[in-house]
Amino acid sequence: MGAVDFEIFVDELATVSGQAILPFFRTALGVEDKSRGAVFDPVTAADRAAEQAMRALIRRTFPSHGVRGEEFPDEGMDADYVWVLDPIDGTKSFISGMPAWGTLIGLCRQGEPVFGMMHQPFIRERFTGDGAQARYRGPAGDRRLNVRSCGGLGEAVMMTTSPLLMEEANRALYEQVEKRVRLPRYGGDCYAYCMLAAGHVDLVIETNLNDFDILPLSPIVTGAGGIVTNWEGGSDLSGGRVVASGDRRLHDEALSVLNRG
Amino acid sequence: MGAVDFEIFVDELATVSGQAILPFFRTALGVEDKSRGAVFDPVTAADRAAEQAMRALIRRTFPSHGVRGEEFPDEGMDADYVWVLDPIDGTKSFISGMPAWGTLIGLCRQGEPVFGMMHQPFIRERFTGDGAQARYRGPAGDRRLNVRSCGGLGEAVMMTTSPLLMEEANRALYEQVEKRVRLPRYGGDCYAYCMLAAGHVDLVIETNLNDFDILPLSPIVTGAGGIVTNWEGGSDLSGGRVVASGDRRLHDEALSVLNRG
Repeated sequence: MGAVDFEIFVDELATVSGQAILPFFRTALGVEDKSRGAVFDPVTAADRAAEQAMRALIRRTFPSHGVRGEEFPDEGMDADYVWVLDPIDGTKSFISGMPAWGTLIGLCRQGEPVFGMMHQPFIRERFTGDGAQARYRGPAGDRRLNVRSCGGLGEAVMMTTSPLLMEEANRALYEQVEKRVRLPRYGGDCYAYCMLAAGHVDLVIETNLNDFDILPLSPIVTGAGGIVTNWEGGSDLSGGRVVASGDRRLHDEALSVLNRG
Repeated sequence: MGAVDFEIFVDELATVSGQAILPFFRTALGVEDKSRGAVFDPVTAADRAAEQAMRALIRRTFPSHGVRGEEFPDEGMDADYVWVLDPIDGTKSFISGMPAWGTLIGLCRQGEPVFGMMHQPFIRERFTGDGAQARYRGPAGDRRLNVRSCGGLGEAVMMTTSPLLMEEANRALYEQVEKRVRLPRYGGDCYAYCMLAAGHVDLVIETNLNDFDILPLSPIVTGAGGIVTNWEGGSDLSGGRVVASGDRRLHDEALSVLNRG
């Protein structure tokens, strides 16, 4: 299967997941269902419906591939190719009606991410990357994604989903970076990485990420010329502490502050 | 001029401002122009172009009306009708490429806001209200906006643009509310009020707002059945400390915490 085949198939996965999710976005279904004594949770319903639709399409098209997702058990993790799915990254944005969430679809070969997409079906935009290049399609056109240069923290626009999500020791280190940057911004989830790939944001620092939160985004960032590592500077992202930068000089400076504590 | 005429005219204002803004969104124009020794600032360029386009249309259509906007001097503030314009509310989202910004267009009659719109030209959605009803048009359909009920802080989803924007005394009071709510969310600017009007968010608390940040949003929130006051509970929003709620019980509880300090 060539790279072009991947892209077409990932577009199909994005389409079926978007169709499964959109009926649940900005609807007033989050009300208590007293007859069942339970709260109906629209984001969980959308998450599960989208992951089921994507899993069915993968199983039908590539029965030998593995699948790892947020909502259902892992399948075929010893396969050569494993799909990594997060149907709604940014669930708190989703439940607040805010548009900064997305569907993450990644493909790993022998454990290494080789292709990733972030799809926002409400805005109708798709960010893709394979580690060598990255691309945008949506209301802003059809174009290559490229990071921008940034000489250091003093010039940087930085994003993190929320410092409230960090454990205290991590937050203290994070705050050492935050106070040095030109503009810190909260929120964003997957959008933060895509805006970094698009050259609008310089630095993303997060903790407590799951592998399915970051593996699909990594080839987009690196495809656009950026860098993604853990806080120690290594390539193992399974610990959940992630730094992404558009410029190597900035990345090194951020790592040095995060490791000074 | 009847209410229907306003709506058609405000739609035209939204269209011309969107056309002026979109060429500057998610472009890589924010680079230093060394020949002029100045930084070209795409958000200021977009802000000014949009406000000029709206002012020209107002002057041509309603020459007797006043205009107050962020970028140019006030005109005709003693007129019966005064337009209140904020072409890009959420400039920090705009420069980061994030979609949670909007164009605010309000109309005041004898100082009272009688109609307001929040327009997001990239997502193509419009939220409008006249204090009696409120409406949404965009990818999520064409429908009435209605706040949801919320019995108190413990059940509430709350938004604020950023606690970092608050002066220390205000932030301490705000944090007393934040620690009591079910889910605090940062970011959003004008979107926070529209999501409250749409029934996805229960409470918005902010400080340091300008009148053009809140006057166009107030008829949307009240039109959807919500409440907008200052932190003392009064209707004068010129001090910039604003509380908006979808439920009177929640509003009273938030005010009581904010005034306990």
